[in-house]
Amino acid sequence: MNHPAPPAVARRPFPAELLDTLRTTFGDRVSNSEAVRAHHGRDESMFDPQLPDAVVFARSTEDVQAAVRLCAQYGVPIIPYGNGSSLEGHLLAVQGGVSIDLSEMNRVLSINAEDLTVTVEPGISRKQLNEALRDTGLFFPIDPGADASIGGMSATRASGTNAVRYGTMRENVLGLTAVLADGRVIKTGSRARKSSAGYDLTRLFVGSEGTLGVITGITLRLYPQPEAVSAAVCTFHSMADAVRTVIETIQIGVPVARVEFIDSLAVRALNRHSNLTLREAPTLFFEFHGTAAGVEEQAQLVQEIAAQNGGDGFEWATRPEDRTRLWNARHNALFAMLQLRPGSRALSTDVCVPISRLAECVVETEADLKTSPLTCPIVGHVGDGNFHVCMLVDPTKPEEIEEAERLNHRIVKRALAMDGTCTGEHGVGLHKMGFLVEEHGVDTVDTMRAIKRALDPHNLMNPGKIFSWAV
Amino acid sequence: MNHPAPPAVARRPFPAELLDTLRTTFGDRVSNSEAVRAHHGRDESMFDPQLPDAVVFARSTEDVQAAVRLCAQYGVPIIPYGNGSSLEGHLLAVQGGVSIDLSEMNRVLSINAEDLTVTVEPGISRKQLNEALRDTGLFFPIDPGADASIGGMSATRASGTNAVRYGTMRENVLGLTAVLADGRVIKTGSRARKSSAGYDLTRLFVGSEGTLGVITGITLRLYPQPEAVSAAVCTFHSMADAVRTVIETIQIGVPVARVEFIDSLAVRALNRHSNLTLREAPTLFFEFHGTAAGVEEQAQLVQEIAAQNGGDGFEWATRPEDRTRLWNARHNALFAMLQLRPGSRALSTDVCVPISRLAECVVETEADLKTSPLTCPIVGHVGDGNFHVCMLVDPTKPEEIEEAERLNHRIVKRALAMDGTCTGEHGVGLHKMGFLVEEHGVDTVDTMRAIKRALDPHNLMNPGKIFSWAV
Repeated sequence: MNHPAPPAVARRPFPAELLDTLRTTFGDRVSNSEAVRAHHGRDESMFDPQLPDAVVFARSTEDVQAAVRLCAQYGVPIIPYGNGSSLEGHLLAVQGGVSIDLSEMNRVLSINAEDLTVTVEPGISRKQLNEALRDTGLFFPIDPGADASIGGMSATRASGTNAVRYGTMRENVLGLTAVLADGRVIKTGSRARKSSAGYDLTRLFVGSEGTLGVITGITLRLYPQPEAVSAAVCTFHSMADAVRTVIETIQIGVPVARVEFIDSLAVRALNRHSNLTLREAPTLFFEFHGTAAGVEEQAQLVQEIAAQNGGDGFEWATRPEDRTRLWNARHNALFAMLQLRPGSRALSTDVCVPISRLAECVVETEADLKTSPLTCPIVGHVGDGNFHVCMLVDPTKPEEIEEAERLNHRIVKRALAMDGTCTGEHGVGLHKMGFLVEEHGVDTVDTMRAIKRALDPHNLMNPGKIFSWAV
Repeated sequence: MNHPAPPAVARRPFPAELLDTLRTTFGDRVSNSEAVRAHHGRDESMFDPQLPDAVVFARSTEDVQAAVRLCAQYGVPIIPYGNGSSLEGHLLAVQGGVSIDLSEMNRVLSINAEDLTVTVEPGISRKQLNEALRDTGLFFPIDPGADASIGGMSATRASGTNAVRYGTMRENVLGLTAVLADGRVIKTGSRARKSSAGYDLTRLFVGSEGTLGVITGITLRLYPQPEAVSAAVCTFHSMADAVRTVIETIQIGVPVARVEFIDSLAVRALNRHSNLTLREAPTLFFEFHGTAAGVEEQAQLVQEIAAQNGGDGFEWATRPEDRTRLWNARHNALFAMLQLRPGSRALSTDVCVPISRLAECVVETEADLKTSPLTCPIVGHVGDGNFHVCMLVDPTKPEEIEEAERLNHRIVKRALAMDGTCTGEHGVGLHKMGFLVEEHGVDTVDTMRAIKRALDPHNLMNPGKIFSWAV
């Protein structure tokens, strides 16, 4: 076993009658087999699985509504399930209940190419979406490492390597359909690019981690495929030099599309896992989007900044297939890093700090890691001030988990002291709950809790995530 | 008198004891003089003034907190007041109460040039802010016509001419300080560029129009002054041609910084008011930001698109003072248009539609206006799909107000049928309340109302705005 999920909250009763009623409604699209429940009671976090009592495979908003109404009738928790790629324990049934699997709701409902919008069901993955957009000349830029579902990405306010240029799910979800705890269906937002018509429920549901309702439809903003794209790799003598290059790039306003940091250890992992031959040194991956002339100009500016910071020249990935290889390697970084220590599990930090503090934050963190016996490669969306320390622990050794948590605490506290956040993109889930009051203050967290209570008075929606119900 | 504010809700009692207690706390910074109350009981909307019972001039978050606590104790409404430039009746004391004037809270608290952020008090105006930023090489782009306060702009989710490139207040407020209805102070967000740490209270308060709390501090995102700027004016044979030019510009992804539509009548108004000599025809004002080469490339692309749509060549405003004159004229458009008919008041629509429907929406609206006896110039942030029909009515003639409301209804209904919004940037206030259920559906508006009740159970915060308290 690896890592028990805190806090220990009693599972709620799951009446046999509810299972019967679900079977009547959903037939073979409800399951309580051990295997199906086990698949839905885990994610990519360190936590031990906690199984739901049953799993419903929904095919429509009406299905979700029916399942939610039945659960509400019996006071049973509801946990939305997309692709299972959460890193923070979001999918664990800590109080039991029904997992609503949305993976069959993976259709593109409408592409409005002229408006640069698309409306999708929540189960579609980011790669499936971009595949569906291929012939439109448009793309959806948000790309967490995993091929996550768009519903899950909305629920965790996800981002990825393109956020420095295109924003996160916060900026790119225009509207939502959601099933509330009492089974009512709401639509938020519109397809207009802006609106001042009442409270921003779209942004409230984005990042609510399933605790306010089940997202069953999402309208997203799209972008024209850039006329020209170029990518490059540049190595540095130190992490600080690499980070300073990023800071200066952002500050002079170069609209860089991607800028990713990979430390020596992570480079080694990527080389092995993805058959690359990069030099094992602190490295930046860059990508530039624009017109041919614009891309050249951006690249020129950034090369000058890199050179001033001791960067060892740019190696260009000019062919599309070389770029794909580079970014696939980056997206597979978690699995590559895990293979640095076979059998290990990863505890990944996710702090994000104001860019002016990034160099300091990273250098102090590096010093922490040097004193630790754990293997801890670092990757980061450094243009946003966000980086991940990937602590590889042997799940059979409690002392390693303890050491990882000690480092994690130090790193989060440092980020908060720098006016940053404990999570840039993974969400709170189970693992960051303890930091929320420290980050926001008790009255702010109580305000969140008041909203939760107003919308979900019986605490049915993914209970036990983000914050505890009790004060 | 011009326009009675709907709906007629009884004023609440204002105990003499509260006035005494406010005087003890605030001394001569509280006033119940007719003149001061009259100044705070009106805005730039068509509505008849409705005076608060008293006005408190706050100088700090603690002042606001003290005033709110006293009002809460007596069940008296609280209305935050910035610069008085609302177009939708936000500032009217429809249920009486205390107006909290924030104009003395106009300091810049910290400029973090390296992070491209600034933290300000709510009473600072957008021009004061940019004046304070002048030596930093940075600027804040959001620019409603009026020199509105940053607090008011946050509360109404304002935008302006730059939103097509830089977003609205939704995208540019990173964090807030707010005093809640019970006097607690919360801080939302952080200075990190992104976060997944809990509910997005920042975005919930942005656009909440003072109904959830009083905003007393705002952290904003800033942008580097572009290396090169160029602006141009282009006239067209029809509104539809102009709008098509905009649509094609957006769709191919030209990162135009500003693109404003001004119809013939509005051009006449601007010429007279701002001593310009523009041709009286459907007109677009453009501005391009970037590197010298980038700006040239953007301008070239847009000129080609305009030419294909019958645009009559670009007239360049190359000198900074010419650009300033152009944009000042645009910002003063409301006052210029009012002078087309001296003594008139303006009822301004604010619909915003998906860009694919903009030409159709504008052409049908133009046809409506041709059948109306009212003078109705049109201006618009067309890159966003947002435009304003400025209906000039004689406030002494009820039949003109009725006609303006008839047109307004048609225009809003058309926009909603096109999956747009009744208000792109002005807010709901008093005037759009009737459209909110039609736009969002009753369950969505009830969800907003549930949040309002959770955060302000006694309906003290700017009551009677956005939606009615009762179902």
